[in-house]
Amino acid sequence: MNKPKIVVLGAGYGGLMTTVRLQKLLGVNEADIVLINKHDYHYETTWLHEASAGTLHHDRVRYTISDVINKSKVQFIQDTVEEIKKEEKKVVLANGEVSYDYLVVALGGESETFGIKGLKEYAFAIANVNAARQIREHIDYQFATFQLDKNEDCLSIVVGGAGFTGIEFLGELTNRVPELCKEYDIDPKKVKIYCVEAAPMVLPGFDPELVQYATALLEKKGVEFHIGTAIKECTPEGVLVAKGENEPELIKAGTVIWAAGVRGNAVIEKSGFDAMRGRVKVDEYLRLPGSDNIFIIGDSSLVINEEINRPYPPTAQIAMQQGENVAKNLAKLTRGTNEELEKFVFDNKGTVCSLGDDDAIGVVFGKKVTGYKASFMKKMVDNRALFLIGGLPLVLKKGKLNLYK
Amino acid sequence: MNKPKIVVLGAGYGGLMTTVRLQKLLGVNEADIVLINKHDYHYETTWLHEASAGTLHHDRVRYTISDVINKSKVQFIQDTVEEIKKEEKKVVLANGEVSYDYLVVALGGESETFGIKGLKEYAFAIANVNAARQIREHIDYQFATFQLDKNEDCLSIVVGGAGFTGIEFLGELTNRVPELCKEYDIDPKKVKIYCVEAAPMVLPGFDPELVQYATALLEKKGVEFHIGTAIKECTPEGVLVAKGENEPELIKAGTVIWAAGVRGNAVIEKSGFDAMRGRVKVDEYLRLPGSDNIFIIGDSSLVINEEINRPYPPTAQIAMQQGENVAKNLAKLTRGTNEELEKFVFDNKGTVCSLGDDDAIGVVFGKKVTGYKASFMKKMVDNRALFLIGGLPLVLKKGKLNLYK
Repeated sequence: MNKPKIVVLGAGYGGLMTTVRLQKLLGVNEADIVLINKHDYHYETTWLHEASAGTLHHDRVRYTISDVINKSKVQFIQDTVEEIKKEEKKVVLANGEVSYDYLVVALGGESETFGIKGLKEYAFAIANVNAARQIREHIDYQFATFQLDKNEDCLSIVVGGAGFTGIEFLGELTNRVPELCKEYDIDPKKVKIYCVEAAPMVLPGFDPELVQYATALLEKKGVEFHIGTAIKECTPEGVLVAKGENEPELIKAGTVIWAAGVRGNAVIEKSGFDAMRGRVKVDEYLRLPGSDNIFIIGDSSLVINEEINRPYPPTAQIAMQQGENVAKNLAKLTRGTNEELEKFVFDNKGTVCSLGDDDAIGVVFGKKVTGYKASFMKKMVDNRALFLIGGLPLVLKKGKLNLYK
Repeated sequence: MNKPKIVVLGAGYGGLMTTVRLQKLLGVNEADIVLINKHDYHYETTWLHEASAGTLHHDRVRYTISDVINKSKVQFIQDTVEEIKKEEKKVVLANGEVSYDYLVVALGGESETFGIKGLKEYAFAIANVNAARQIREHIDYQFATFQLDKNEDCLSIVVGGAGFTGIEFLGELTNRVPELCKEYDIDPKKVKIYCVEAAPMVLPGFDPELVQYATALLEKKGVEFHIGTAIKECTPEGVLVAKGENEPELIKAGTVIWAAGVRGNAVIEKSGFDAMRGRVKVDEYLRLPGSDNIFIIGDSSLVINEEINRPYPPTAQIAMQQGENVAKNLAKLTRGTNEELEKFVFDNKGTVCSLGDDDAIGVVFGKKVTGYKASFMKKMVDNRALFLIGGLPLVLKKGKLNLYK
């Protein structure tokens, strides 16, 4: 008898969690497990703003996949997924094909530019390790260039988006700027940091008191907020922005970071799955509707929060819980015990938004926290993600252990 | 009675040597000494190739001028020299004017592009600290960008010129490349380094056996030499080169370093001094011909080597010896003792060309040296320059003390 073949696409939070849980739940003879990922490493998407700002080296935000998988149970293939052919039960890769009995699609999200002109060409998205270190080096290069022609636009940085990523990046960036000024003999007063957000508020969905704390802190550290202001176009010189119906104005900037939108993976649409901006509204078992062997988790899945009748935002927390759920259900399915599958229920443990290495805001176990306490909690959240996938050894290797600062 | 006022323009090797010698030779009541420099620091021009390649931090190649001058004797003005008005005995600065009785022009050289199209816009010259760190960051950025679109041109670097600066830079760069490849997950085989030189030889004037050693070493470390090949134009894509009368070919490159020409300072011509490419053929006391109170030293001066009837190349060694000579003569002049002035005679102590931190070639006290021995000598030469200006404290602070490597 052939063992069922489980193929996991993507080694982000969701895919890697699925894989490490599966290798615990299933014996070598119960299933073939295949993990496919573009890189041979996993990266902490939620730490990329640090690598992008240059406050944490990019090697600290990634680890080798082979460090956390059990090679006797899981076959790892480093390749790029191009398309899922569900009728043929196979996945097309850049360099081959893989067939499956069960498929877990955990390919992650992509930056959504909403068709804004020039964003793809001239703005940077905090998308992955490659993009993060490019952003770091781009900012470094802009600062290094300033003294040559004294063009202050080099020292101007626009962050598009005052959501989670935008705010966390600003927290790191404002900590990094004094270091950059020292490195390149620049008067910090010359540096301009703008945050442009089309929505009428910073961190929508967050407690207003905490939002107030965050904006006050970032403003003190030099950020100029332009809220209710849309980026109309990005050019090599900067961004054209407009508040409401006003005439667009140019904010000159040497660096534009686009941190305002996430959508599902392009492979979802390419594979003909019904989706909204690349995100599939999955069934209660996280399956592609109408399919009993394709699970979709993480940023390409869409789960409705029944309380407010809106989708849960795509986070590492939900992706990891989805991974655990899928792994459990796949264990039942491969054993064919006809056990009832477990429905996915998101258990929101809270959210902490960092404001640099030394400050944060958040709601944890229903309680509001700010400052050192929140920053401590944030590091514990980050360490927990490592622990869930790689246990204590991974926490000791890559964890944020500078807790008392 | 008014004390004579000695104004020194530039705090490079020549100007700073003049100043520190003057402050030793003259008492507080004998002269007013003014030193004018664009930055508040001196930098080691001969170490800039290291800062440019990123093998030595730029703070290691510079030191604060106030650390080596005696403030009770020397007034330091941080400003940019724009023009010398010799009839009025004054110097026009960006932010004022200074009059003088004696003037020492030690403004350093500038990159000479020989009118080659696009070099000013698209190539980098290893000109000063600002330029060096921009080059370092530019290369970093190119390497950081590669993984995003896999454009191998990002990993291609052209060095124009196989003279001293070009070869020393290549030595550092080839040591830096493996580090960059590790940092950005790049296969070192993808990196291309070209050295394009219009002259028919590498390091003209150097012993052929030593040149052979240098080119063999650099070729082994990945440098592709195109000798007898002229850069016809520099574009955003790279350089158009041609061997002899051949049709120009494009070498694509993300980074082009122009290290092929030095000329005198533009202030020389702006001030109406008779000059060849900004260099004044000074008299035997290093004076501007026809003037008895303006001395010109360093890269903007031209001293003929009578043995071969050609000018000495502009080096730190000759600039410092000129500084010593001028200081001695100025001491005599300000004292008005009618002592005979001392003619300048260059004492060539040899030349060492580094090939990275760990190798070099050179002729020292008439003997050829290569490898570790030469590299050791090079560091001693570098330390000696520090010692002559700032004594042992400066050597201990900024010296190259990693001698046993």
